[in-house]
Amino acid sequence: MEAMKPCAANSPPLTPLGFLERAAIVYGDCTSIVYGSNTVYTWRETSLRCLSVASSLSSLGIGRSDVVSVLSPNTPAMYELQFAVPMSGAILNNINTRLDARTVSVLLTHSGSKLLFVDVFFCSLAVEAISMMTTDPPVLVFIADKEEEGGCRADVADRNKFSYTYDDLVERGDPNFKWIRPESEWDPIVLNYTSGTTSAPKGVVHCHRGIFVMSIDSLIDWTVPKNPVYLWTLPMFHANGWCYPWGIAAVGGTNVCLRKFEASLTYRLIRDHNVTHMCGAPVVLNMLSATQESHQPLKRPVNILTAGAPPPAAVILRAESIGFVISHGYGLTEAAGVVVSCVWKPQWNRLPASDRARLKARQGVRTVGFTEIDVVDPESGRGVERNRETVGEIVMKGSSIMLGYLKDPSGTEKALKNGWFYTGDVGVIHSDGYLEIKDRSKDIIISGGENVSSVEVEAVLYTNPAVSEVAVVARPDEFWGETPCAFVSLKEGLSVEPTEEELIEYCRNKMSRFMVPKTVLFRDELPKTSTGKVSRLVLKEIAKTMGDETIS
Amino acid sequence: MEAMKPCAANSPPLTPLGFLERAAIVYGDCTSIVYGSNTVYTWRETSLRCLSVASSLSSLGIGRSDVVSVLSPNTPAMYELQFAVPMSGAILNNINTRLDARTVSVLLTHSGSKLLFVDVFFCSLAVEAISMMTTDPPVLVFIADKEEEGGCRADVADRNKFSYTYDDLVERGDPNFKWIRPESEWDPIVLNYTSGTTSAPKGVVHCHRGIFVMSIDSLIDWTVPKNPVYLWTLPMFHANGWCYPWGIAAVGGTNVCLRKFEASLTYRLIRDHNVTHMCGAPVVLNMLSATQESHQPLKRPVNILTAGAPPPAAVILRAESIGFVISHGYGLTEAAGVVVSCVWKPQWNRLPASDRARLKARQGVRTVGFTEIDVVDPESGRGVERNRETVGEIVMKGSSIMLGYLKDPSGTEKALKNGWFYTGDVGVIHSDGYLEIKDRSKDIIISGGENVSSVEVEAVLYTNPAVSEVAVVARPDEFWGETPCAFVSLKEGLSVEPTEEELIEYCRNKMSRFMVPKTVLFRDELPKTSTGKVSRLVLKEIAKTMGDETIS
Repeated sequence: MEAMKPCAANSPPLTPLGFLERAAIVYGDCTSIVYGSNTVYTWRETSLRCLSVASSLSSLGIGRSDVVSVLSPNTPAMYELQFAVPMSGAILNNINTRLDARTVSVLLTHSGSKLLFVDVFFCSLAVEAISMMTTDPPVLVFIADKEEEGGCRADVADRNKFSYTYDDLVERGDPNFKWIRPESEWDPIVLNYTSGTTSAPKGVVHCHRGIFVMSIDSLIDWTVPKNPVYLWTLPMFHANGWCYPWGIAAVGGTNVCLRKFEASLTYRLIRDHNVTHMCGAPVVLNMLSATQESHQPLKRPVNILTAGAPPPAAVILRAESIGFVISHGYGLTEAAGVVVSCVWKPQWNRLPASDRARLKARQGVRTVGFTEIDVVDPESGRGVERNRETVGEIVMKGSSIMLGYLKDPSGTEKALKNGWFYTGDVGVIHSDGYLEIKDRSKDIIISGGENVSSVEVEAVLYTNPAVSEVAVVARPDEFWGETPCAFVSLKEGLSVEPTEEELIEYCRNKMSRFMVPKTVLFRDELPKTSTGKVSRLVLKEIAKTMGDETIS
Repeated sequence: MEAMKPCAANSPPLTPLGFLERAAIVYGDCTSIVYGSNTVYTWRETSLRCLSVASSLSSLGIGRSDVVSVLSPNTPAMYELQFAVPMSGAILNNINTRLDARTVSVLLTHSGSKLLFVDVFFCSLAVEAISMMTTDPPVLVFIADKEEEGGCRADVADRNKFSYTYDDLVERGDPNFKWIRPESEWDPIVLNYTSGTTSAPKGVVHCHRGIFVMSIDSLIDWTVPKNPVYLWTLPMFHANGWCYPWGIAAVGGTNVCLRKFEASLTYRLIRDHNVTHMCGAPVVLNMLSATQESHQPLKRPVNILTAGAPPPAAVILRAESIGFVISHGYGLTEAAGVVVSCVWKPQWNRLPASDRARLKARQGVRTVGFTEIDVVDPESGRGVERNRETVGEIVMKGSSIMLGYLKDPSGTEKALKNGWFYTGDVGVIHSDGYLEIKDRSKDIIISGGENVSSVEVEAVLYTNPAVSEVAVVARPDEFWGETPCAFVSLKEGLSVEPTEEELIEYCRNKMSRFMVPKTVLFRDELPKTSTGKVSRLVLKEIAKTMGDETIS
């Protein structure tokens, strides 16, 4: 028995890239992508286009361990790049298009990107970011958009900075390219930044094996059937759209692409394409419930998987009354997607709607392909009692946990220790074994599906000469989930004290828009803990009692 | 990037055993098993029972790398043992209950089984097998069956040979036992014999990783939803019921157990329990189509996954007319389950029923979790043209390919080479990429879902003093798929020549019943190839032209 070792026939590296190759055979004639009024591809075409782009990248000298970045919303090209870049052997880095130029430049530098694909609407952002770099800038590839009026609106000066167009790479590539398989399933496939405005960006690196397991696991957990119609309301630059770019290829679905989430557009696409599945942060549910169209129930049920922040029970209830079927999960970029989900029990169907929504608002249990989740006491490191009372830090282990943070061995070591990934999130376990989050990582504010790092916002405010001390915490918001709220003490003896509006304006020029505090509160002194640190707990409580402030 | 290595948090061994732990939390109150009139368990109970048995095995000194065998039909205990045995760290060996005592003794010896679980109806078989062993016999554990009249019918003399009862092991075990996780995902979890009457049994060894991937992959490929009601028509001793014991735990299904497949009973169980899913060889479809009940269409569609032999299009057509939804796959014990399946394309729904059945009779394409399938030219070893004409040997690679054959390095080396598993099966690839089998391995006859080795049947016939030369090939049979057909030349100068019936009777005493030839044809000389070998191809053609002979 001992003599039996893995061999080439039974240990080919696990990778999600083979899903596309198979889709080209099984679903060759089926629609892979629809976009706008005139763009439709089949899986055979998508496969050929991805192979062509991969071959072009290869011809440009891109290969194993090179990083290729993308700055694009959910267009067909964006979808194709989720396959094409790793098929060239390179590591894919999707960049959040909502970041400001300075942050983009930090990420490009930190990742050492060799090449950057840029959607037409983000050319200025890319060019500005590149101009801020002091290291070698990446080669720029321009992605046009025939479906948009503004498809050529990129400034000519900016446009000249681009060496290639995406269409060139498709047309000149070899559709029979033999894609580069990973040498090991532990080879990196993607790099996703979770923050980056400060000098210490956190670049989460995942391997082929992790993404394979997550993609498959997510299909089972959400019971995605064959040939679903998937609407791309969740940005692919958020943890690779929780691995659904690969998962939808595995089941031969139709990807309905869209540039920007809007409630009316979403209802129209649902109707036009018979959408069956979509994902999004709870704010998406809010926006869908707040429009005219929500008064008319859906013709067919549409499955929505929501994650990224705990959805209030009322939000679930409202969305379900329209005809959406809500599933709720919990994950982090470091876990590659949803690794905990609120699996529904048949007997819960008999409960009143409000009880159902309350149960569904809990995060749930680990997915089938994941190994373990626990909540541990920060002192002892041991699992807490499962009594829904005792809070602790959520820890997890499983195949989809990241390899680590890029160029950050000490950050990696802090996160991956004692056999666990320490999430920084705080939760409890109910007596039935279901996890409920009590607080996301103490430094993270989740606003409209985007993670805002308190520390980064504070760092910017500290650069203001009038600020003595600052702490940024989450303020609850019915619509956005949370918004950043800054508590500021000003220096003594200032001739002119800045106003709330002035400090907000100050932030606006120095950080991505979604990070800017919506509220600034002045205090003579910030409350401190016994060890002299600013007490975030006290400030969070204050922010909570201020209640919601809905901003449309 | 190079610095990033797997660590304990992201590389816990993949194993299907965690599915049960999770089911106990997620589906704790849901039914896990129903059997007979009075046996019903919940997933919480099943988990506790499995842990108890695992702990008892541990107390008996069973642990890592020990083999534990089971001789049982699809009872609740049989289901539990699929988890309990590997949870003790041991390797599970399900033995086909249709084998004869001599074969069982060969397998027990070859595997070095430490312990043998025996269902009440198979006590005599087990005791007879043990009496034939010359090595240390396994400890015997008796499995009673409260649901059966004959639950105590085991002969008292036989019964005395048993050291423990299964109920003892459940009751005395520790339900809080910490199950033994594999040290590596490459550790063996199961051992399945594909043949064994000769002196060279083929014991297929699979590892935890392989079974994990196969279990998950099978759920996706067949689109198994949460909480299915799964009827156990497929014996678990056939390649571990193609991994569905573990898969059904992953989705919190109900396992409807049954001792023996009978068409009427199956219809009753479908009705009583609202069965949604079942598996079986094509002969199961035949039997379901041949009864009184088949005249009434099913109230709800029931999904049947058929594999193990190519189902004739007519058989599929008939079963679908009753209301069964047929999926068709192809696999081998060496691949742990169905790794090729005939994925259905929406546009095929528009075709006439006969065309649909013809398309569905093809084996199909690799599953999502599997890596590659090809058909290679036996001379050059290169892939054949995809023209549905050019035949070659089917080769495959993927995570669920076996580690190897137990104690058979040369057999393993022959099967696993050049990076592929060589199936021995012959097929073609259609221009649309779908695989179609033209001939199972030249030495295998598939009769009623059981694999019969020609070579083994021939070996027995050669022991008859009247036989000069013999070749056993498949004769097509509408009902059983195939039956063994022996071509025999007798020695010269015999005083009395044996009749067909006498040779069949001779076989009956020396092999498992399903292996016994249904036809014996005498020839003065067997046809030979140019190199002087018996030409099986010619004999197969003769057997084919004889046409079907339906045996009820």
